[in-house]
Amino acid sequence: MASDTLPPDAFAFSASSCSFLRPYLRNKSSNPQRPFLTLAYASSLDSAISLTPGIHTYLSSPQSEAMTHYLRSQHDAVVVGAGTAIADDPGLNSRVRGMGGYGGAGLEGQPRPVVLDPKGRWEWDSNARVLRMVRERKGRGPLIFWGEWGEGGDWRSKEKQRRDEERERLLKNHGGKIIRLPLVDGKMRWVDILDHLKAEGIKSVMVEGGGTVINSLLAAEHAHLINSLIVTIAPTLLGQGGVVVCPKRRTDDQGNPIPVTRLRDAKWQPMGEDVVLCGKLGE
Amino acid sequence: MASDTLPPDAFAFSASSCSFLRPYLRNKSSNPQRPFLTLAYASSLDSAISLTPGIHTYLSSPQSEAMTHYLRSQHDAVVVGAGTAIADDPGLNSRVRGMGGYGGAGLEGQPRPVVLDPKGRWEWDSNARVLRMVRERKGRGPLIFWGEWGEGGDWRSKEKQRRDEERERLLKNHGGKIIRLPLVDGKMRWVDILDHLKAEGIKSVMVEGGGTVINSLLAAEHAHLINSLIVTIAPTLLGQGGVVVCPKRRTDDQGNPIPVTRLRDAKWQPMGEDVVLCGKLGE
Ligand SMILES: NC(=O)c1ccc[n+]([C@@H]2O[C@H](COP(=O)([O-])OP(=O)(O)OC[C@H]3O[C@@H](n4cnc5c(N)ncnc54)[C@H](OP(=O)(O)O)[C@@H]3O)[C@@H](O)[C@H]2O)c1
Ligand SMILES: NC(=O)c1ccc[n+]([C@@H]2O[C@H](COP(=O)([O-])OP(=O)(O)OC[C@H]3O[C@@H](n4cnc5c(N)ncnc54)[C@H](OP(=O)(O)O)[C@@H]3O)[C@@H](O)[C@H]2O)c1
Repeated sequence: MASDTLPPDAFAFSASSCSFLRPYLRNKSSNPQRPFLTLAYASSLDSAISLTPGIHTYLSSPQSEAMTHYLRSQHDAVVVGAGTAIADDPGLNSRVRGMGGYGGAGLEGQPRPVVLDPKGRWEWDSNARVLRMVRERKGRGPLIFWGEWGEGGDWRSKEKQRRDEERERLLKNHGGKIIRLPLVDGKMRWVDILDHLKAEGIKSVMVEGGGTVINSLLAAEHAHLINSLIVTIAPTLLGQGGVVVCPKRRTDDQGNPIPVTRLRDAKWQPMGEDVVLCGKLGE
Repeated sequence: MASDTLPPDAFAFSASSCSFLRPYLRNKSSNPQRPFLTLAYASSLDSAISLTPGIHTYLSSPQSEAMTHYLRSQHDAVVVGAGTAIADDPGLNSRVRGMGGYGGAGLEGQPRPVVLDPKGRWEWDSNARVLRMVRERKGRGPLIFWGEWGEGGDWRSKEKQRRDEERERLLKNHGGKIIRLPLVDGKMRWVDILDHLKAEGIKSVMVEGGGTVINSLLAAEHAHLINSLIVTIAPTLLGQGGVVVCPKRRTDDQGNPIPVTRLRDAKWQPMGEDVVLCGKLGE
């Protein structure tokens, strides 16, 4: 495809401008027990990722947005929670020039979209951007994680069941798949999610949000699952009431508060108006 | 003073390493109506400046701490709220090598410490670090802003009055001074504070904290008083329950939330493990 026929929303982008990211990405030769996990999000100075849960807030500069799309191309899967799927209708593909659908061959560089939706709250139809990307050959078929509501005690109405089946069919027609997970106290367990992604052949995962998913992953009991943290910070203050990254407090044996976590090998890279922080967490 | 007789807590520091700060400091030739105001604080990734209000949390690297002390030397006054005076017992002087008391002559480069204490909650005695600095010729006599409780309706006990007078005497003996301000709804007005500082000959002010003071200043109705914002961010997450920088929400005419503020001329400077963000706000 000649570059003048590229989709207009493709990012012109040189990977060399992101060489600082390399030490924080999966070493391709490694074959870890669980998928390599990168947590990546954009926040304001006051640690908000959005003004309110229901909307998408434009925070980062075009350069940082291009970097996020480059990061997506460096992972086998991109994960968001149901809240983000509903609020943002995200494409979850990589619009970097040279990736599949953006000048590249096939679906090269396109990650698999993954949505975590324990209660099946996200009611997609064929207009969902993530499915449109599939039809336009710009993205892979999504994996949607659902809780096991249909099995055992069926608390859903016949009508809802019919709609679930319809959605599942639509998803399959787009090369996607529902994965059912047992819920523990109404929640999916991260180790289950990662085990299932591994079984799908996924070796690296980029978790993008939103707030609930990020805070769950950063909590002391899960943070060891994160390999790299990549945060883009914009020089803006959103103010009270936003969707905020702030994990559950940790305390020492005496009950005194202690920091939740500190990054290893922290590196700050100015990018346009923003800064990108890279660091390591788990093993 | 030979450098081997410098106080052991002096920061060895080259001003050239802070040349990036210059555009964000007061232009010495200008003579504005109000003192030039720099808001400077250190926060975690999740926008906390302390684990809890009552304690001091070490957040920033030695390099960033040295920069803060350099910043102090570039301002005529350093301002904190009563909460910080009580929790931290801060020295509020500049420990940079070459400043008065740290190798320099007299009190050169030493800012005037200012504490905002509308209800007189801070019960200092001669052990207060800020007074010790005066006795050791390492700092100037502090200005303490009190509300006008003694005048008009006197709601304080005789005993409290006696202690107030004693504290005031101690302060005067250290070259300090109480300044009384009228309270509006129990609060001091920033314009009054700045007017009084100007009357004291102070042309530039660095406000350091804590959370209540910072959020009050960043709120939409006061942010125009801030000339520069300098935030040091450490690659750590403190978690819920900390003292957090997050100003009051702003909304548009329809009541929709909008960002509180965005910095102009933002510049990110990596410094040790941290990053320093400089930007401009008001006029
Ligand atoms: N700036 C950024 O980088 C960025 C990135 C992405 C999203 N966002 C913003 O974030 C906002 C949405 O955030 P949100 O908190 O409302 O939604 P979210 O985090 O996207 O989704 C939360 C939901 O995901 C489900 N979930 C499944 N597994 C989970 C697990 N292990 N831990 C936690 N949740 C799990 C839960 O659904 P149930 O409650 O149904 O069980 C949970 O309520 C939007 O405004 C969006 O624009 C910003
Ligand atoms: N990381 C950093 O850069 C940094 C810097 C400084 C402090 N800190 C931390 O901050 C914490 C203390 O914060 P804090 O919020 O408890 O106390 P604070 O902000 O230092 O003091 C707040 C008090 O100052 C008084 N005040 C006077 N004028 C004010 C005005 N215009 N606006 C707001 N307050 C005014 C009020 O006293 P009344 O309530 O009596 O009226 C108010 O409660 C400590 O943990 C300290 O270590 C961190």
